[in-house]
Order: sequence, then structure tokens, then C-alpha cells
Amino acid sequence: MGKNLPSDLGNTRLSIRNGNRRALAQAITLIESTRPDHRVEAEDLLGTLLKYTGESIRLGISGPPGVGKSTFIEALGSFLIDNGYKIAVLAIDPSSKKGHGSVLGDKTRMPRISNSEKAFIRPTPSSGSLGGVARRTREAMLLCEAAGHDVIMVETVGVGQSETAVKDMVDIFILLAQPASGDELQGIKKGIMEMADLLIVNRADGDLLAAASRTQADYHSALRLLGAPKNDWSTPVLKCSALYDEGIPAVWDEIEKYSSLAKNNGLFSQVRRDQAVAWMWSEIEGTLSEQFRSGKNIKNKIDEFEKDVANGILNPSAAAKSLVATFLSDN
Amino acid sequence: MGKNLPSDLGNTRLSIRNGNRRALAQAITLIESTRPDHRVEAEDLLGTLLKYTGESIRLGISGPPGVGKSTFIEALGSFLIDNGYKIAVLAIDPSSKKGHGSVLGDKTRMPRISNSEKAFIRPTPSSGSLGGVARRTREAMLLCEAAGHDVIMVETVGVGQSETAVKDMVDIFILLAQPASGDELQGIKKGIMEMADLLIVNRADGDLLAAASRTQADYHSALRLLGAPKNDWSTPVLKCSALYDEGIPAVWDEIEKYSSLAKNNGLFSQVRRDQAVAWMWSEIEGTLSEQFRSGKNIKNKIDEFEKDVANGILNPSAAAKSLVATFLSDN
Repeated sequence: MGKNLPSDLGNTRLSIRNGNRRALAQAITLIESTRPDHRVEAEDLLGTLLKYTGESIRLGISGPPGVGKSTFIEALGSFLIDNGYKIAVLAIDPSSKKGHGSVLGDKTRMPRISNSEKAFIRPTPSSGSLGGVARRTREAMLLCEAAGHDVIMVETVGVGQSETAVKDMVDIFILLAQPASGDELQGIKKGIMEMADLLIVNRADGDLLAAASRTQADYHSALRLLGAPKNDWSTPVLKCSALYDEGIPAVWDEIEKYSSLAKNNGLFSQVRRDQAVAWMWSEIEGTLSEQFRSGKNIKNKIDEFEKDVANGILNPSAAAKSLVATFLSDN
Repeated sequence: MGKNLPSDLGNTRLSIRNGNRRALAQAITLIESTRPDHRVEAEDLLGTLLKYTGESIRLGISGPPGVGKSTFIEALGSFLIDNGYKIAVLAIDPSSKKGHGSVLGDKTRMPRISNSEKAFIRPTPSSGSLGGVARRTREAMLLCEAAGHDVIMVETVGVGQSETAVKDMVDIFILLAQPASGDELQGIKKGIMEMADLLIVNRADGDLLAAASRTQADYHSALRLLGAPKNDWSTPVLKCSALYDEGIPAVWDEIEKYSSLAKNNGLFSQVRRDQAVAWMWSEIEGTLSEQFRSGKNIKNKIDEFEKDVANGILNPSAAAKSLVATFLSDN
């Protein structure tokens, strides 16, 4: 057991349930550890806390770099704290490297909420594959729920596949956009736009106010072109100024409207069920692949076959079949 | 053994090597079959033919719908046939559904080359996952090489992930674009543009000629902005009119230039080695996953765990770990 990690499951569980932020932070550190013994402890802990999870609203916050995601999270977070909610801020950033520090989720970025007892902010897990980072963030989300946080915000860097990873773990996917110069809706791919349950044009202030209104109308049209509303919901397009705290209550109104609609028509719980099952399958594939690569007895055979395949004297699918057969007979 | 499938490995091999197009077509049908006994035969056949593969130039042809991919393939194909080459046209279209017929690779689409003895055109494998379709296309490519085809063209529908699948099996990735109206380079994602070894603005004829020249210059700038040349090659931007057979020899010149450069600097063989090894790994993951899902003894446990995970009473990663352990101890 390393230091800074919880040493007693029962105590840890109790401390987390009592809202002890230090215990929560330590438990997340445990979850982020790749040491097999830590992994066993982490799963035990999650197992005992699972019944206290699921009561929060899980928000995904995405948008291109520079759109003002942290300012938005601070503004929405402050509003929620003022209204009696406990919040948590997590992040998915597969690009961040160990030791290089991490911008996302950094507490100094969010001075207004980081000192509140009602906010828990977790810096990005450092390094790792997207799958690995997503697993830890998912599990951290469960721990935050067990600690009684009512709204979990999972932030994405808006690069690569991290949006999909976040979409697959939240109830509501919020896309932030910038006021566009000219007619173009820049920096947001159609595929990302289609994921949005709520689209918000941020920076609707000062010189950019007029542009923000135009952009709001443009996104409204673009979303209508993308297709009919799904599950009785057509993605609203709002504008706000996170910097000046303008338009934030309207954002929360839409989140509550969506959440209550989705709870009534069954979508909310169906999506969560589907997400959990999909997560199980992605863990199965990840675990199978890990076990295969770490199999001692086939290491030599893998090396040899890789060479033959590279040299074109062995067909890749025949090699794969034979390696898998060896692996399975070894276990 | 179904009908229309080769029944004697030695004869089949000989007929394929002798350029019998019917034998080649039947062998590809064998490869496309998912029946386990066919799969065994297919791998035997590939194994015996592997030493005759690898001598072609493998071209990937991509571009948005409507850009004129079939017309381009016909024009380039006719030019190559006239110059003494044997060609083959394959396609990757994971969206095509069994029984609904397939547009891509349909012989009636390519009347000029489909009657030539020196052309082999294979309709898209019907249905299946992208991975499955890509596997069959890869193996069909090897068979075409064994049959003595000098240039293999693999066409993509230009939708979803099919470009990456094609890029991962060819030597040269050719991206077709349309003359743009206005300033915008529409319909092509940055990620796809970065994959291109050669970019061709098609439809440079009639009313669109001026637009095609502008678009050519725009793509040239866009590609320069994307970054410095890689491996001594900066992606050339050409224009052509496949419909009027204009600019096709220049396209072939660039293909030969690239291929000779890549052969000299070692990239050509390195890429093929890497592709083969990556293919082996993707087959390993696919096979492991297939075996897991078809494991008789854990079927019940999977169903039960899926339900518990969906209901939030079992943690997905704990479920995955336990299922994988059961699977491995069963084998």
C-alpha cells in the first residue's frame, strides 16, 4: 500500500460517504493506480459504494480549445453552489503527459469554486490511453456520486476521440461554441454537433454580442438541417457570457428540462443502462487484450510470428489464429 | 463445400496463377465466406499463394460521394491497360447491406474496363463490420497479386472509417476532390487530407475548369499549412478530367515517382511490414473477441452480468474481470 492511499476499506467508505474531500481524493488516486493490488482494492471499494451512486446529473462539457470551458464550468458551478448543490469537476485529457502537469481540471484555473466546500475538482489523470483515462474518469464519477455530489461535470479537451468517451459516460452532452466571424461555423465537426443535447454560444458579451446572436441563429439552422428531434428533444441553442455570469440560469433551466423529460420518457435510465453494458464490453476487450500481451508462454511465439508476418512469409490472419489458439490452450 | 467454390486447392492455385479470372472470383468468394470450414480452406489457399504476392502497386482511391471515383478508376484503369498493365479494382463499403446489391465495384459502372481480359473488378463484399469487410478486401488483394495483377485499386465510399481501413492496406493513398464553389474546400476533413499521398481535383473540364484550377491552388496551400513534407515527399496536387481522359498520364507519373522514391528510401517496404503486423494484431483482437462471445460455458454468466451491470448493482470493470477469468479458465 503506497502512502496517500486509503488503507482501510471500511473507514475509506465511511469518510467518502461523509463528504470528506481528502478521502475522496485519495480514493481516486487509488483508482488511477495501475498496480494490480491497488486495482483489486479499487474494485472492492467501488463494489461497496456502488449502491450509493447514480443520483447525480452527469454533464459532459465539450467545445474547441479557447471557447472558455473552464470559465463556463466556474460560472455554472458557482450558480449551482449558490443554489445549494454540491458539484464535482472531472476531466478527460488523453493527451496530457505524466510529469508535464495538466492544464485541465487544475484548481488554480477555477479560483471561484475551488475553495468551496461544496466543490470537488480533480485534475486530469496524467498519461495513459484514452480507454485507460476514460475508465478512471468513469470510476471517479461514481466515487463523487457516492460522496454526495449532485452535479458532475466531465470536461473534454475537444480533441480526437475524447468527446465520444465523455458522451458515453454522461446524461447530457453540452457543446460550447464561439461567436463566429463571418458566416462560417468554425472548429466544430458535424459529428460532434450531432452529439449535443444542448449547444451554447459562449462569449456573448461586449464586441462579440452581435456575432454571438448571429452564430446562435446559424447553429439553430444547422441543427435543424441535421435532422428531426430525437426522443422528443430538439437541441436548444443558447447564448451566455460565462465571464460576466450572464445567461447561466437559462442554461441550468434547459438542463433540468432535458433531465426531467428524459426521466419521464425513460431515456435517462435506458441510456445509463446501455452505457454501463457498453463499458463492461469495452473492459472485456481491454482485459482480454492485456492478458494476451502479457502471456509469458506466447511472448516468443508472438515475436517470431511478427517477424514472419512482416517479412511476408506468414499470412496475418493465419498467424493471429494460431497465436490465439496457443494463448487459450495455455490458460 | 458450397457450389461455386473451389474444391481442390492445387487446381485452384494453378488456375489463379494462370490468370483464370473465374478461379480468382471463386477464391474471393471462398475468402468472403464466414463458414469455419471455408475459413480453413481460405487460409490454406492464402498460405500457398503468399509467396506470389506483394509485387503490385496498391492504390487507395478515396474522396467524397459524387467526386467521380468510378470514372477516375475507369480512366486510370484504361490508361494502364493500354500500357500493358493488368489491373484489379476492389472496394471497401461497410455500409452496403446483403441482398440490397452494391453500387461500388459494380461492373456495369465501369463499362470501358470491365470487358478487358486485363481487368478484374470485384463488387463490394456485402454486409459485415468494417473490420470484417477490410479483412476480406485485404485478402482479395493478395489473391489478385498472386493472379498477376500489377496495379490494385482499392476504392472507399468516403464515409466513416473506411478511409483509414484503406490507407492501412495500400502503398499510395489518392484523394479525389471536386472543384469548389467559392473559397471553401468542402466535404474533405483535415484528417483525411493529411492521409493523402496524392491529391487530385477531378472534373477539371468545361464550366468547372477555372474553379478546378483555383481549387488546386487552394489545396496546395492547405496541404503546405498542414505541415512539412514527410519522408522526402510533399503531396502533389494535380487536376484531371477523368470524363475526358485528360491529365491521367500525369497522375500515373506521380504514382510512379512516389513509388520509386519510397522504394529507394525504404518507406515502401517499411510501410508494408508495419501494415502486415498491424493487421495481425487487429486479427488477434477480433479473434479473441469472437471466441469470447461464442464461449458456450460463459453465455449464461454474460447474460446475468449484463443484467446486473445494467441495473447498477455490479461494477462494469469488476464484471469484465470476472467474465474474462471464467473464459480463460474454461479454455
